[in-house]
Amino acid sequence: MQVRNGIAVSPGVAMGPAFVLGVEDFRIPHDTLSVTAVESEIARLRCALENVAKEISANEALAEQHLGKEYAAIFAAHLQFARDPKLLERIESLIREQHQTPEYAATQVLRKFARELQHLGDKYLAERAADIFDLERSLLRHLLGEQREELSHLTAPVVVLAHNLTPSETAGLNSKYVKAFVTETGGSTSHTAILAGALEIPAIVGVGEFISDISGGEMIIVDGNEGRLIIAPDAETQARYLTEQERFRTQSLALQKLKLGRVQTKDKVDIEVCGNIEFPEEAKTCKKRGADGVGLYRTEFLYLGSMRERTEEDHYNAYSKVLKKFPELPVTIRTLDVGADKIPDSMRAIYRDHSNPELGLRSIRVSLEHTDLFKTQLRAILRAAVHGNVRVMFPLVSSIGEFRQAKMVLRDVCEDLEEQKIEHKPDIPVGMMVEVPSAAIMADEFAREVDFFSIGTNDLIQYTLAADRSDPSVAKYYNASDPSVLFLVRRVLFAARDANLPVSVCGQMSSDPKFIPLLLGMGLRQLSVTPQKIPLIKQLICNISIEDCQKHAKKVYQLDLARDIENFLRGELKRFLPESEVSR
Amino acid sequence: MQVRNGIAVSPGVAMGPAFVLGVEDFRIPHDTLSVTAVESEIARLRCALENVAKEISANEALAEQHLGKEYAAIFAAHLQFARDPKLLERIESLIREQHQTPEYAATQVLRKFARELQHLGDKYLAERAADIFDLERSLLRHLLGEQREELSHLTAPVVVLAHNLTPSETAGLNSKYVKAFVTETGGSTSHTAILAGALEIPAIVGVGEFISDISGGEMIIVDGNEGRLIIAPDAETQARYLTEQERFRTQSLALQKLKLGRVQTKDKVDIEVCGNIEFPEEAKTCKKRGADGVGLYRTEFLYLGSMRERTEEDHYNAYSKVLKKFPELPVTIRTLDVGADKIPDSMRAIYRDHSNPELGLRSIRVSLEHTDLFKTQLRAILRAAVHGNVRVMFPLVSSIGEFRQAKMVLRDVCEDLEEQKIEHKPDIPVGMMVEVPSAAIMADEFAREVDFFSIGTNDLIQYTLAADRSDPSVAKYYNASDPSVLFLVRRVLFAARDANLPVSVCGQMSSDPKFIPLLLGMGLRQLSVTPQKIPLIKQLICNISIEDCQKHAKKVYQLDLARDIENFLRGELKRFLPESEVSR
Repeated sequence: MQVRNGIAVSPGVAMGPAFVLGVEDFRIPHDTLSVTAVESEIARLRCALENVAKEISANEALAEQHLGKEYAAIFAAHLQFARDPKLLERIESLIREQHQTPEYAATQVLRKFARELQHLGDKYLAERAADIFDLERSLLRHLLGEQREELSHLTAPVVVLAHNLTPSETAGLNSKYVKAFVTETGGSTSHTAILAGALEIPAIVGVGEFISDISGGEMIIVDGNEGRLIIAPDAETQARYLTEQERFRTQSLALQKLKLGRVQTKDKVDIEVCGNIEFPEEAKTCKKRGADGVGLYRTEFLYLGSMRERTEEDHYNAYSKVLKKFPELPVTIRTLDVGADKIPDSMRAIYRDHSNPELGLRSIRVSLEHTDLFKTQLRAILRAAVHGNVRVMFPLVSSIGEFRQAKMVLRDVCEDLEEQKIEHKPDIPVGMMVEVPSAAIMADEFAREVDFFSIGTNDLIQYTLAADRSDPSVAKYYNASDPSVLFLVRRVLFAARDANLPVSVCGQMSSDPKFIPLLLGMGLRQLSVTPQKIPLIKQLICNISIEDCQKHAKKVYQLDLARDIENFLRGELKRFLPESEVSR
Repeated sequence: MQVRNGIAVSPGVAMGPAFVLGVEDFRIPHDTLSVTAVESEIARLRCALENVAKEISANEALAEQHLGKEYAAIFAAHLQFARDPKLLERIESLIREQHQTPEYAATQVLRKFARELQHLGDKYLAERAADIFDLERSLLRHLLGEQREELSHLTAPVVVLAHNLTPSETAGLNSKYVKAFVTETGGSTSHTAILAGALEIPAIVGVGEFISDISGGEMIIVDGNEGRLIIAPDAETQARYLTEQERFRTQSLALQKLKLGRVQTKDKVDIEVCGNIEFPEEAKTCKKRGADGVGLYRTEFLYLGSMRERTEEDHYNAYSKVLKKFPELPVTIRTLDVGADKIPDSMRAIYRDHSNPELGLRSIRVSLEHTDLFKTQLRAILRAAVHGNVRVMFPLVSSIGEFRQAKMVLRDVCEDLEEQKIEHKPDIPVGMMVEVPSAAIMADEFAREVDFFSIGTNDLIQYTLAADRSDPSVAKYYNASDPSVLFLVRRVLFAARDANLPVSVCGQMSSDPKFIPLLLGMGLRQLSVTPQKIPLIKQLICNISIEDCQKHAKKVYQLDLARDIENFLRGELKRFLPESEVSR
């Protein structure tokens, strides 16, 4: 038996035989073709390109059917490239004129094109280079006949293990047979992780090297709640996880049935539990699970797989869709947070000037650099706001000057709409994410300028502890229980309390039940969590009193070591919830 | 006239015509050779390799002569590779058997080798891949006859402008003719920057794209104090900088003559001003400039250009050399801080699992992962300690558990030496760098465990504000004057005061005169600065009183905006120092 830990990106427990997807390390032949071979090689290339296009269409249809239209957009760009007649023409001419092999010629043409996109100076076009690399892999797979797509021929349940999965491979997973998946690379916010969550297949990413030890067929347990991978479990462990799997299933069913409205603690304090969403489609699930609103509506999906710049109408439609699902309840839209974790692996190599993208030009910094893009988004938000109860917030704000600058752009946009007599709501609340240590430290000063705070614990933890949250080699340094992180969270909660400002926590910390009593004890009254977790967290809140939470928090303040805090929180959670209901 | 800003890495002002080093974008021919060409192509390859080796030897000699033996070590690995008979053999066999061109064959062999080194799993061997890329470039340059090395044929003073300079190119710069240099890429702690400082040539790196606008021969002003590059200055600016250049020169001369011993403020408070050093050779300069000790002895130079693991004796000799120069004065040795900024550009592409190296496995985290390496270093420090007044400190500590773990390794090493009856000093003070926000936040708790603090402002700023200090695209977000940074520095100074612990500031902030009155006003009594700045800073300290500094600091606490603080500090500095002596 071997146990490995990774990043849990989709909850649940699954068990099944290992199905290993080989690493794609193509040997590209670049010998010179004989004259007689040229035409047959070109035929082979055309056939492969046609098959690639068919495969992409199939994936697109599959994604649309299972996940909705926005997810399917990921594949639009791939298809556009694969069907581009100029592409075929260029590859053919290399084969015909220089007698190159189709594999070599295709690689040359595609990489050259990717590099050109890189150098156009447009961030969104540059990111499309990743799609080209994806296409290159598919084409080589078809040309060289390597069967990574065996996945589509599954006839029995398996657990898929791979070095990495592209978004297209993930969306193509058939949840009838694929019971879970585990990858060596990847982070908690990669597109692959997002798709896994939407598919509701237990998944772990960022485990680090482990596949070389596996020959295929071994029994595998994937604990997507704890991020634990167990290879060849012993009988006792298997039995334990079968029980756990059963318990998770009944609990999920029970919680899904439980339709909780607004909740109060035992001592009658109102707590608002909103949901975090990424795609407009998720608003439905979010509402079904009993959300009191949308606490974090991420807007990066708009830039997924799109070759063209998004128009104001694209934004407007996406926002209106969610607002119409929540006409009364608050919906907090976060402006574009294109960050390092949105850059696909295949591209990092080329990002030479951003050697630390998480500490680079991302998020609000990108918006303030490209105000045209930013204004398009803000116009759409103000226009959509007439349909509901919208709040807007800026991510990654690190200084007061920066917040003022962003607000000034919003004011400009508002004046433009006024002048153009376009229907909009001018006076929506304007807040900020607190996720950079400087913002948490200066919370008292920020409180004089903002209408609300939303604490983004994921980034706050990674900067406070200088540990990349998607780098498995420093996973042990990334610790939500670190007393310094709790100090900063508390500082923000206190600043909000003193200024009488709304404050919410929307990072992963608020979706983790063991932190709930502590956060309430520190003064939190609003949270925004993964929609799947809403029923569990509402149930937990009904079971506890603020008075108890405050005592609990005071005990935590006495502890200096993250490990001790973590153990204490885990132990106490059992006290707040009966054992059978503690899911993690 | 055009003004561009970059990162100042070596002070001084210079003026001269632009000399542009072209970007090296080799077109590698990979047509098939005719049988008759094979032998002549092999002869061409041998000749090129021989010339590369000669060039490296020449650079090595130059570096040794101008800078000392340790700097020259950078080239040892290059030479070893260039002269490796197996390398020649492998390239030749590709030419002979597959009729490849020498350029293509060499690229294939060298890149394959670099990749192999990458995958051995040893960080130090992996970093050597950079040397191979450097060698590849030199070899291609010789094979293709492109004359980037025109530099060696200079006959008149110039300012060198380049996309980037390799360490070998930097060390090869002839300071007789190269009056300054400016690069588009690079960070303040790259090897190129370190070498520039040692050469005492004004230099700016990380300016971002500007070379495409320059045709060569334009007048260029390099202000290495402010990190400012001025292209085609107008007459007034030229005149102003000529005066400035003259002033800087006389001031440097005057300060060099000024032999300051220990200093006191006007109200008789002792202030200790130590120097930061990187190479053992610098101890001499450091002493000459009047240092009260070495406040930060970086030890990464030991891993520069070395193919083999460094032995305990290598460490011991390097440490003893410095201690013997400072037999009475304190010398603070920082354990290995191999960080992201030590990874050469050419390699980042391959560092796929560390997409944010500054937030990854670096520094003390590497030492705790490779305890054999760590123990070798600690043994050498304890042994060398008998020669002087040594303190040891751990970099990048982020939690108390981590500090305890490092101290435990030190205790183990001490016991081993005891048992083996090897001469050593067991009871040296053990401190830590405070450079991660969590450490600054938890300073009160750390104060119970450490013997001293040293605040590393460079990293502290970059994490607190989430801005990579070597990424030009976020340079404006990296701001030493940000009130959140000052809050954390103050928090550490107060914790040290309450616990009666020594505390020093060794980041670039302490080398910047405008921060000195503020830091003294906040309670700082020890600083460690760039040796070149010691005389200036000592002179400044003699001119001010702590009482004034405290009033000054209180005014700073009232300000919320980094910009306002920056302006206030600049303005006040004029008050603390007569105008003629304000260098930046």
